[in-house]
Amino acid sequence: MKKESLGIVETQYFTCYEPPQELKLKSGERLGPITVAYETYGQLNPDKSNAILICHALSGDAHAAGLHKGDKKTGWWDIMIGPGKAFDTNQYFVICSNVLGGCRGTTGPSSINPKTETPYGLSFPVVTIDDMVHVQKALIDHLGIPRLLSIAGGSMGGLQAMKWCVEYPDFVQSAVVIATNYRHNAQQIALHEVGRQAIMSDPDWQEGNYYGKNLPKHGLALARMIGHITYMSEKSMDEKFGRRLIGKEKVGYDFSIDFEVQNYLRYRGDSFVERFDANSYLYITKAVDYFDLEETGGSLTAALAHVTAKFLVISFTSDWLYPSHQLKTFVKALKTNDQDVSNVIIESDYGHDAFLIENTRQEHVVSHFLKRISKS
Amino acid sequence: MKKESLGIVETQYFTCYEPPQELKLKSGERLGPITVAYETYGQLNPDKSNAILICHALSGDAHAAGLHKGDKKTGWWDIMIGPGKAFDTNQYFVICSNVLGGCRGTTGPSSINPKTETPYGLSFPVVTIDDMVHVQKALIDHLGIPRLLSIAGGSMGGLQAMKWCVEYPDFVQSAVVIATNYRHNAQQIALHEVGRQAIMSDPDWQEGNYYGKNLPKHGLALARMIGHITYMSEKSMDEKFGRRLIGKEKVGYDFSIDFEVQNYLRYRGDSFVERFDANSYLYITKAVDYFDLEETGGSLTAALAHVTAKFLVISFTSDWLYPSHQLKTFVKALKTNDQDVSNVIIESDYGHDAFLIENTRQEHVVSHFLKRISKS
Repeated sequence: MKKESLGIVETQYFTCYEPPQELKLKSGERLGPITVAYETYGQLNPDKSNAILICHALSGDAHAAGLHKGDKKTGWWDIMIGPGKAFDTNQYFVICSNVLGGCRGTTGPSSINPKTETPYGLSFPVVTIDDMVHVQKALIDHLGIPRLLSIAGGSMGGLQAMKWCVEYPDFVQSAVVIATNYRHNAQQIALHEVGRQAIMSDPDWQEGNYYGKNLPKHGLALARMIGHITYMSEKSMDEKFGRRLIGKEKVGYDFSIDFEVQNYLRYRGDSFVERFDANSYLYITKAVDYFDLEETGGSLTAALAHVTAKFLVISFTSDWLYPSHQLKTFVKALKTNDQDVSNVIIESDYGHDAFLIENTRQEHVVSHFLKRISKS
Repeated sequence: MKKESLGIVETQYFTCYEPPQELKLKSGERLGPITVAYETYGQLNPDKSNAILICHALSGDAHAAGLHKGDKKTGWWDIMIGPGKAFDTNQYFVICSNVLGGCRGTTGPSSINPKTETPYGLSFPVVTIDDMVHVQKALIDHLGIPRLLSIAGGSMGGLQAMKWCVEYPDFVQSAVVIATNYRHNAQQIALHEVGRQAIMSDPDWQEGNYYGKNLPKHGLALARMIGHITYMSEKSMDEKFGRRLIGKEKVGYDFSIDFEVQNYLRYRGDSFVERFDANSYLYITKAVDYFDLEETGGSLTAALAHVTAKFLVISFTSDWLYPSHQLKTFVKALKTNDQDVSNVIIESDYGHDAFLIENTRQEHVVSHFLKRISKS
């Protein structure tokens, strides 16, 4: 089938947990009201059985596919979502929402606290993947969807997908879990910690009270640079940049930019600052670090025992941030429970970013999995 | 043979390139006078044929083994250097010097510029591995050593060893090159770049003019934290820390420290600031990034064509900062030239740090290599 673009799409907003209701967070704190930014693509079928929730990664948002009016850049997973694509919007009703704690339309630390009429800043409570999932559930209920055909996500999105399956076992028919881990290990926590320290060491961070003042842009840019290195592979970085110099015949023997890779990192860091809130970066990385599926049940097999969803688990050979062996442990636990799981390790040089980059194998695998689930 | 400690050792100093002499740097700039901090262990034999130069890594110094008076911590490679150890000081005369641009006794950006009587800061010229090697050669000449039995180093030390063999082919009988690369690739440059950006974004850095004022400690600590993550392996971090919490039953749902690994990184960052100069970190990482053995000859085989040294090349299976395949390319070039090279890949979970950690295999391999070289 011919792959097409979704064309123009729009972000919508939904507000839940309005007074006197409040969301009880995992920490015990309470939060409300909560606004959720989301987008939908395709049509919900009459028996409401074709809904798929897409969960975004750390720096993603609700704009997963298509174009915003006036924009030239498509949503972050446009390669996978649209007419004729893996998440085929001719067949499925696809939803994506910005996570709780985010800064792209959903309530987070940069939102106005209605009680004080100023931005929350660090008074925003620390949220977890569980809390994000509870808010997504409120959205799905609001949309009148009784059960998800599937839930899919890469990296942090994969954590949300896992949590959905454990938390709402009767509500999720299948899950596509990509390039992630069932709990953050020491190295993954360490990498996030350095990003957080970069932000919190920036004098402009001001304990999170920087709204309307100078943004902690150096700290956030640094955090993003570190992130970018971990999203690529040694090979993909070398193929993309090697030791190529930027617009000069020889190195400058100074501390300006010599190599293209330096330029790329600075560009990535600087452009991130324009679209992302530093406090959200703190909150979201913390939520990811706190995630531990094993703790839910004492063991991974116990945590997954009541899950009914069928799983497609995908990892990439050159992803050193979330290496395949971590998801193998997850797959093994599902198999121990005699659960339906397909484990696919895709050969790719693109590192962790591979799931965001055009990849025929990933497309085919997801497309076939969803067809199988739809028929079952 | 019983392994013993060297006991008390002392750093010595040697000054070269005194007026009117100056060292002509690779950049074309000139520098002098240059003081070199160095230590020696063991005795030079009557025919001066038993000298081994040890080259340190990024954050190392001249104090490679033994104890400084009043100290409890031995030199950085004490596991390898001493009576009965791999670099057996009963047999060899071992020398280690702090590199040019360093901050541990050898002239660097924190040294007083005799012309201005203030610290150089960023007026210190950018130095290269080549320049470091030229200064080491001046020291070796000063010590009256006509030829090195061997030159050995891990990480940045390995680059110096390689350069010595290329630059002074008749002067080096053998080289032990560990956990390094023959040129920094894009990922390695990127990781250094983030460290440099961390320092240069710290407002206390003040374009390098912070001596006698507030040190850019946040930036330098961040750079060190990033470094530390790259020096360990995923497995060693997980075994050392896992998700263990620090002195609490459950996570704090705030931005203080929850996990032991966070605590470790902060400790490592903070303690580094006390012993290392931020500008030296900039200069030394830049020197490493600039290193490219291939450019010397147009190809690696051409660059190595005139080398007469016998090589022992060691890498570690879990070292993802300098993975084995990079040194395999170096070994292949030597073999293409029909040169004498032994390539040893050691199974270890300790990542890049493996060469600094007690390792029987590394000890045996180096010890046997040196015995073979001594007899030839």
